[in-house]
Amino acid sequence: MSKRLTIALDAMGGDNAPEIVVEGAAMALIRFPDVRFILFGDKNRISPLLTKHGLPNSSTEIVHTNDAVSSEERPTIALRQGKNSSMQLAINAVNSGEAAGIVSAGNTGALMAMAKISLKMLPGIDRPAIAATCPTSVGESVMLDLGANVEGDAENLIQFGMLGAAFARTVFGIEQPSVGLLNVGQEEVKGRDAVRQAAALFRERKLPFKFHGFVEGDDIGAGTVDVFVVDGFTGNITLKTLEGTVRLYSEYLKQTFKSSLMSRFAYLLAKRSFMKMRARIDPRRYNGATFLGLNGVVVKSHGGTDGFGFANAIGVAIDMTANGINEFIIRELTEYGEQEAHQARIV
Amino acid sequence: MSKRLTIALDAMGGDNAPEIVVEGAAMALIRFPDVRFILFGDKNRISPLLTKHGLPNSSTEIVHTNDAVSSEERPTIALRQGKNSSMQLAINAVNSGEAAGIVSAGNTGALMAMAKISLKMLPGIDRPAIAATCPTSVGESVMLDLGANVEGDAENLIQFGMLGAAFARTVFGIEQPSVGLLNVGQEEVKGRDAVRQAAALFRERKLPFKFHGFVEGDDIGAGTVDVFVVDGFTGNITLKTLEGTVRLYSEYLKQTFKSSLMSRFAYLLAKRSFMKMRARIDPRRYNGATFLGLNGVVVKSHGGTDGFGFANAIGVAIDMTANGINEFIIRELTEYGEQEAHQARIV
Repeated sequence: MSKRLTIALDAMGGDNAPEIVVEGAAMALIRFPDVRFILFGDKNRISPLLTKHGLPNSSTEIVHTNDAVSSEERPTIALRQGKNSSMQLAINAVNSGEAAGIVSAGNTGALMAMAKISLKMLPGIDRPAIAATCPTSVGESVMLDLGANVEGDAENLIQFGMLGAAFARTVFGIEQPSVGLLNVGQEEVKGRDAVRQAAALFRERKLPFKFHGFVEGDDIGAGTVDVFVVDGFTGNITLKTLEGTVRLYSEYLKQTFKSSLMSRFAYLLAKRSFMKMRARIDPRRYNGATFLGLNGVVVKSHGGTDGFGFANAIGVAIDMTANGINEFIIRELTEYGEQEAHQARIV
Repeated sequence: MSKRLTIALDAMGGDNAPEIVVEGAAMALIRFPDVRFILFGDKNRISPLLTKHGLPNSSTEIVHTNDAVSSEERPTIALRQGKNSSMQLAINAVNSGEAAGIVSAGNTGALMAMAKISLKMLPGIDRPAIAATCPTSVGESVMLDLGANVEGDAENLIQFGMLGAAFARTVFGIEQPSVGLLNVGQEEVKGRDAVRQAAALFRERKLPFKFHGFVEGDDIGAGTVDVFVVDGFTGNITLKTLEGTVRLYSEYLKQTFKSSLMSRFAYLLAKRSFMKMRARIDPRRYNGATFLGLNGVVVKSHGGTDGFGFANAIGVAIDMTANGINEFIIRELTEYGEQEAHQARIV
């Protein structure tokens, strides 16, 4: 089956939609020329943008709808009233197999609710997790859950580990990713019950990744492991703290360069190097939070991103679908399940 | 009563003790010339250092002991075997009223265990909390709990709010501090049960501070509130993530300046400005985690700090004691308790 890889785009989601969506698709097409996009939304607004950004008809299709989910809409309302929204129709395209994945910069809660109900969970996974990539001193790592759940037990953390490892394998291309559990210390006795139980379970089973043990908050910047597993409450606050700290530091840096004539001049001299540094920590490069554990690839772009950021979110969706992340997860979970059953028999 | 303010120092705690402890005391004495220090530890090692760093006899006293708690010691073992340790003796001096507070750069778990058992909790406080100051874009804020507890309920969060507000009042000198609860979103329906219950309790009572509502991780860098309240598990991971991100960014900055001849030259030009920036985010400036809620002032310095960092930890202890943080907390809690009793009567 040499079907062309197709990605559904919610063209109406995000602060500057549909422009950034079309611009992002055009940029993504340079990196992935064989991909096809179905854009869901207002044809009258999308069509001229396709021309403007030079997207060929052979790579795009528009499915018209007047409805869109607003960014303030409550998920329950969006579910009830958004049956014909660009978001829901794009998800339907994944469900029907027309598209391999969907990217939206719209309302996160609505996207999660619709995706969960329409696509359902992968067999063996109880809850979805939100995962994102973050820069480290040695490259990049993936962290999850970032807020799909506010509570969770040891079994959820184990599943997040499986999902995160599958992400690292398919998106980073790491054969045997290392997985760490975020905790308040590295000793076995430390931390919450669920975290200690999850560590014990990780240790006693043969897993498709290397379990590193407990890691701490400063291991994220150091890139100690490829996958950081954490509950959604802590993960959400941690990721936002990380983003806020980068913003604070950048602000300090800007003020420093502006603080004297001499340092203004210095900035001009070092500008090229600083452009490279900025590119390295550019939040747009890390745009694209993934909803893992669903029976379909769903990527959520930041609502305020631009075309470049949206193109990166599309890139994440393409890496995941092209490398078959969900097939990989299902295979791993089946083996894992058989192993559990086997263990139950020998006990 | 014009008794001289006395601080007990665990002279043997920390990677480079007793040198950094004595050096820190000498530096602190420049800022607080009237303070007196009692140094607990090996007299033969401390005594020559006092001379070396020019500490006058009138400002210092040594209480000799051969015992010290090692940094790897388990708290339970330290409690049992450390009765004559420099750490325990320094805590005893606070308990007996000889000293107003204690500073130690030693084993955190042992310090917390010893302080809890010897000093006990303030009336009305169920659990201690670890608090620390962090830099923000508008100044500095305090965050707690940073890991004294891994679990906690709404009532604990309320008490942390009271403790943090008292800290902001006595150390930052803010009359009506603003307090925010860290959560995964700002809407009332978001987050964990304990966090939502705490918010409801904060809202329905007259409190000695402004309750801001929910805040998110990126509000820390922005300095949205003076006091960030969070459970100890999430708080510990969040603070360490923040520290790790600053380290990562600093590393990127260093690499950037070294990346070309031109940028090396630029660094020389902007060096003065960068020294100022470094001073602003210098982790030594924010050294000194405070154990709040105990019936005595206890400040924990980073184990790896130097004299300058230790002097800042001493400064935190002095600010807290000189401004009567615990008297303030007791008064507030009494009013708060009366208010609760009053509410119970009118219901």
